[in-house]
Amino acid sequence: MLIRRAGQIRTLALCLALSVGLVSMARAQGAPLPSWNDGATKHAILAAVKEATTAGRPGFIPVAERIATFDNDGTLWVEQPIYTQLAFALDRVKVLAPHHPEWKTEEPFASLLEGDLSGAMAGGEKSILEVIMATHAGMSTAQFEQIVVDWLATARHPRFKRPYTELVYAPMVELLAYLRANGFKTFIVSGGGVEFMRPWTEQIYGIPPEQVVGSRIKTSWEMTPEGPVLMREAGIDFIDDKAGKPVGINAMIGRRPMAAAGNSDGDRQMLEWVPTDRPRLRLLVHHDDADREYAYGAKSHVGTFSDSLMAEAKAKGWTVVSMKDDWKRIFAFTP
Amino acid sequence: MLIRRAGQIRTLALCLALSVGLVSMARAQGAPLPSWNDGATKHAILAAVKEATTAGRPGFIPVAERIATFDNDGTLWVEQPIYTQLAFALDRVKVLAPHHPEWKTEEPFASLLEGDLSGAMAGGEKSILEVIMATHAGMSTAQFEQIVVDWLATARHPRFKRPYTELVYAPMVELLAYLRANGFKTFIVSGGGVEFMRPWTEQIYGIPPEQVVGSRIKTSWEMTPEGPVLMREAGIDFIDDKAGKPVGINAMIGRRPMAAAGNSDGDRQMLEWVPTDRPRLRLLVHHDDADREYAYGAKSHVGTFSDSLMAEAKAKGWTVVSMKDDWKRIFAFTP
Repeated sequence: MLIRRAGQIRTLALCLALSVGLVSMARAQGAPLPSWNDGATKHAILAAVKEATTAGRPGFIPVAERIATFDNDGTLWVEQPIYTQLAFALDRVKVLAPHHPEWKTEEPFASLLEGDLSGAMAGGEKSILEVIMATHAGMSTAQFEQIVVDWLATARHPRFKRPYTELVYAPMVELLAYLRANGFKTFIVSGGGVEFMRPWTEQIYGIPPEQVVGSRIKTSWEMTPEGPVLMREAGIDFIDDKAGKPVGINAMIGRRPMAAAGNSDGDRQMLEWVPTDRPRLRLLVHHDDADREYAYGAKSHVGTFSDSLMAEAKAKGWTVVSMKDDWKRIFAFTP
Repeated sequence: MLIRRAGQIRTLALCLALSVGLVSMARAQGAPLPSWNDGATKHAILAAVKEATTAGRPGFIPVAERIATFDNDGTLWVEQPIYTQLAFALDRVKVLAPHHPEWKTEEPFASLLEGDLSGAMAGGEKSILEVIMATHAGMSTAQFEQIVVDWLATARHPRFKRPYTELVYAPMVELLAYLRANGFKTFIVSGGGVEFMRPWTEQIYGIPPEQVVGSRIKTSWEMTPEGPVLMREAGIDFIDDKAGKPVGINAMIGRRPMAAAGNSDGDRQMLEWVPTDRPRLRLLVHHDDADREYAYGAKSHVGTFSDSLMAEAKAKGWTVVSMKDDWKRIFAFTP
C-alpha cells in the first residue's frame, strides 16, 4: 500500500515538479516572489519578513517561534465553483451508488445522482454532512488515502480542465518557500479534512503531513488478522474553521502563529490569533479576478469574504492581496 | 507574559544545559549512547538505526518518514511515586484551597488537604478527574503555561530532592539526540497533558511544542478587551493513552511511527502501530532498578507493565530495556 501510494504520488508530483517546484525554486534564487507584481502588497510582505528575521528589530522572531499558518481552500488553491473536497465527495457518491440502491430515492443522494447539486444542497449543512459521512467514513485511514490519491490522479477541474493539484496559486507557493527560506515553519490550517490534504501537501506545497491541521473525522483502533488499522467512523471529531482554527492551532502546534494567511471569514480568528504586540504578516487573499480565476467574496457562500472582515483588515492593517493587481500570474501553467 | 516565560524557562534550562545538554552532546560526538552499557540492548538500537539509515537495506526509511514517537512518564522521566502532573495538581489544590472553603468537607479535596492521598484517590478515576479539572481548567492557556513554569521552578521530587526536569533519563535523552542526528523527527506521545509538557520539552528533550502529542482539555476562543485568549474548560477533549495513542498520532502527525518507545501497557498500541513489514525499533523501558530509581511493573498502578505486555514484547522481538543492566547511569547528575 505504501509503495503503491508512493509511486502514484511520485507520478502526480512529477507533473508538477517542473512547473511549480523547479520554476519556483529557480525564481526564488533570483529576486524573491517573482509571481508578485511590485507594489504595496509585495513590499509589505518583504518588509514583514525582513522585520521578523533581523536581529535587533522590534519585530524580530527567534527561529523556533517562526510559525506561519496558511488556510488552504481559496488561499493556496482554487475553491470555486465548489470546494475540491466536495467535488471528490460527489464523485464518490457516483462510484458508490451501485452499492446503495436506496440513494435513488433518498436525499440528498437522489438529487446528486441526477446532477442537481443545488437541489441536493437544499438541506444545507446537514446534507453536506450526510454526503461527507457516506463518502469519507467506513474505511481505514490507509484505504481512504489510496482513494484520495487515485481520485486526484484522474479528476479534472470543470473550468480549467487540469488536475486540482495544478490549481495551486504560484504566488502563494512562492510565499511558502520564501517564508521557509527565512526560517519559518509553514503549516496548513484548513477547514478541509486533514486526511484529504495530507497525501499531497508535501509534494505540492512542501508541507509535510505532520504540519497539516484540518477538520477530522473520528477514528477507532482495530486489530485485524493483517495487523492494526484505524477505521474512519461516521462522526465529526473536530471542525477546524472560524474559532476552531486557533483552537486547532493550540491543540496541534502549541504556539501562536507569527504569520498567517487566509481568504475568508473562516480565517478571521486565525489572523486575530497572531500576536499584535509587534508588526507581523497577516494576509488575506481577495478573489477579484474573474478573468484569470474567480471574483467573489461578500456575495459568495464558498469562501465568504464579508464586508466586516474587509473592515477589520483595513482597521488593523492586515495585508489584503488583490489577485488581479498583485499577482503577475495565478498558476504555474499560465504565462 | 511571553518574555517573563522565556526568562524563567531560560533559567530552568540553564541549570540543565551543562548537565544534560552539553554533556550529552559532547559524549554524542564520541561513541553514540555513552550512558548505555554495551550489550544486546544497545546493539539492537544501533543495528535498528543503521538499518533505517542505510540506503539499499530492506529496513531503509526515507528521511521524511523517519518519525520516532516517545512516551514521556516512565519512558523519558520519573513517574514514581506519582505522576509529576498529579504532584502538580496536588500542589495546586493546596494553593487554591483558600478560595474553595467547600473543599474542607468535599472529597477528594478534603482528604487531599489532610495529606491523605490514598483516601483522596479512593474514588478512582473520577476523583483524579475532579482534581485535574479543579486545577487545570478555568484559566487561559497562557496563564496555565505560566503556572506550570512557576511550579517547575520550585517543585522538588520527594525522593531525589531535585527539580522534576532534572529527573529525565540520560540514556533516553541520548537516544533522542542520536535518532535526530540520524534524520529522525522525534515526537512525544504521552498520556500526560499536552500543555503541561510543552513549556519545557524543547529545553529538556530538544522536542519543540509542535512535536508534543498528549491528552487535552477542551479550550474555547474568547475575545477580551486585551485581545483574544483560549480559555481552558472543565472538559476532556482527548485522552492520549492506549488505543488513543495511535489515534492521536494519526490526528496530529499523520504518519505511522518508524520507531517508538514506551514503558507500560498504555504504550502497547503505539508500539503495535509501528509497521511490522521491516525491522524497526520498538522499545520498552522496564523499571527494575529499585536502588537507582524504582522497580515496578506488573504490580504497579502507575506505569503498569503487565505480564501480557512482556509476553507480547518477547514474541514480537521488541527491545526491552533493563534499567538495571542496560543503563550505565540513570540521570545526568549521577556519575
